[in-house]
Amino acid sequence: MKLIESVKEFSGFLNRYEHESEACNCTMTFSVFLPKEAEGAIVPTLYWLSGLTCTDDNVRTKAGMQRYAAEHGIALVFPDTSPRGEGVADVAERYDLGQGAGFYVNATEGEWVKHYQMYDYAVNELPNLLEDNLPLKSGVRSISGHSMGGHGALICALKNPDKYQSVSAFAPICNPIECGWGQGCFGAYLGDNKNDWQQFDATELVKTGNKMPHILIDQGLADEFYDELLSENFEKACADSSQALELRMQEGYDHSYHFISTFIGEHVAYHAKAMRAE
Amino acid sequence: MKLIESVKEFSGFLNRYEHESEACNCTMTFSVFLPKEAEGAIVPTLYWLSGLTCTDDNVRTKAGMQRYAAEHGIALVFPDTSPRGEGVADVAERYDLGQGAGFYVNATEGEWVKHYQMYDYAVNELPNLLEDNLPLKSGVRSISGHSMGGHGALICALKNPDKYQSVSAFAPICNPIECGWGQGCFGAYLGDNKNDWQQFDATELVKTGNKMPHILIDQGLADEFYDELLSENFEKACADSSQALELRMQEGYDHSYHFISTFIGEHVAYHAKAMRAE
Repeated sequence: MKLIESVKEFSGFLNRYEHESEACNCTMTFSVFLPKEAEGAIVPTLYWLSGLTCTDDNVRTKAGMQRYAAEHGIALVFPDTSPRGEGVADVAERYDLGQGAGFYVNATEGEWVKHYQMYDYAVNELPNLLEDNLPLKSGVRSISGHSMGGHGALICALKNPDKYQSVSAFAPICNPIECGWGQGCFGAYLGDNKNDWQQFDATELVKTGNKMPHILIDQGLADEFYDELLSENFEKACADSSQALELRMQEGYDHSYHFISTFIGEHVAYHAKAMRAE
Repeated sequence: MKLIESVKEFSGFLNRYEHESEACNCTMTFSVFLPKEAEGAIVPTLYWLSGLTCTDDNVRTKAGMQRYAAEHGIALVFPDTSPRGEGVADVAERYDLGQGAGFYVNATEGEWVKHYQMYDYAVNELPNLLEDNLPLKSGVRSISGHSMGGHGALICALKNPDKYQSVSAFAPICNPIECGWGQGCFGAYLGDNKNDWQQFDATELVKTGNKMPHILIDQGLADEFYDELLSENFEKACADSSQALELRMQEGYDHSYHFISTFIGEHVAYHAKAMRAE
């Protein structure tokens, strides 16, 4: 991995790196915030998965997350939302399929297979690379994200409760196999057999017994994409499966980073506490 | 003034407005953060003047300032950095002259006169408009800014100590008549007579007796534009004139919003304290 930018912030460093991804078969870019504690020690790591159209840049610029990570002495990792580059399949006219819309699944269909392996990338390749190369505490990881990335955080944790101390999400796509965004992407990446989609759907995973000790979700009630997110389906599945869930419906908040910035401090504290307990 | 966007954030609202400016002879856009306290009371106001190339959007998205304003129960006002629009003079190939680079002066030269009256706009027209139309405490104002906007904040306060309770700046252009950025703009907007430039130069204003009770400045030592900013000239003028100045040289910090976000909380607290004392 190659350091391509480093900016001092909150007494730590916000770094950007490039590396050749084996999972995605292309050059991938990501950012890491290292708090000052990482100068002489290893620190826990909170992964943040971003939403449709984002790169690693949106969250590092807009969420105000680094301040809280500095307070708690934890690292942040901001992966990209898809493979990218000239040879990477894309649908130029769609923001919700292809580059910027990897949906954190492992594609099995046609032109998508070669590069769109974002689930393996986020869960395995990137954490292993970072724990080998940066002062991050091995295996002490939490995960959060927004919208498509909230979906990503939920499925990564629910499928790997041994790999993550805690999980949270902002306005996640809770039940992608039942909404337009999810159906459009899952059909393209995973094919027509809907049974193959369930392994990447948080609501279905909870229904079939996948579990985390606790899940925290914030959802704005003025979210312009509310109907795509289906948080009620997830809430019902959690209730039926005795999955502990704190779903906070936030009056008046929309889908933007202004919503995220308002509550991100509580999420970082939630994850820091879970990781410190390790 | 017309409300064109409203987003809930930190229990308050981040609003964007348009209005027809008399000073600038064109439609101007600005943003205001109103804390929840403004629902039932009038609140103090911190003005933020942005730097070259910015609109009202950069600071509202990147600085993380609204969180602290919400904590202190103060409003934030983010004006644009220049007049804008099709009929407004500009130099398309220059980022440091024309639209996005109003330099908070009142132009007296040629094509610039009609619209480039940003000093009057920032000091008089906009505050009067806002105190007439929003729940802002009349005359209880502080001002801060970044780079060109740090220069703007310093001159607005030094020329009007009766209008502002406090002033601070991040990496301000402290002595524009002695640096390339300032000379380029002042020559265009104010003409060739350098005596006419001094009234809009913070270092010159301090030398000639203008005064605020105290000035707070943060300056990064890894600032890529360090040589344009001339903070040492300002420091010397303040020392010679017994102007109280806290100039904090911040090791390793650059000129970006990552630098601003690191210290903005302390600046907001500084201004909130000064305004609460009124």
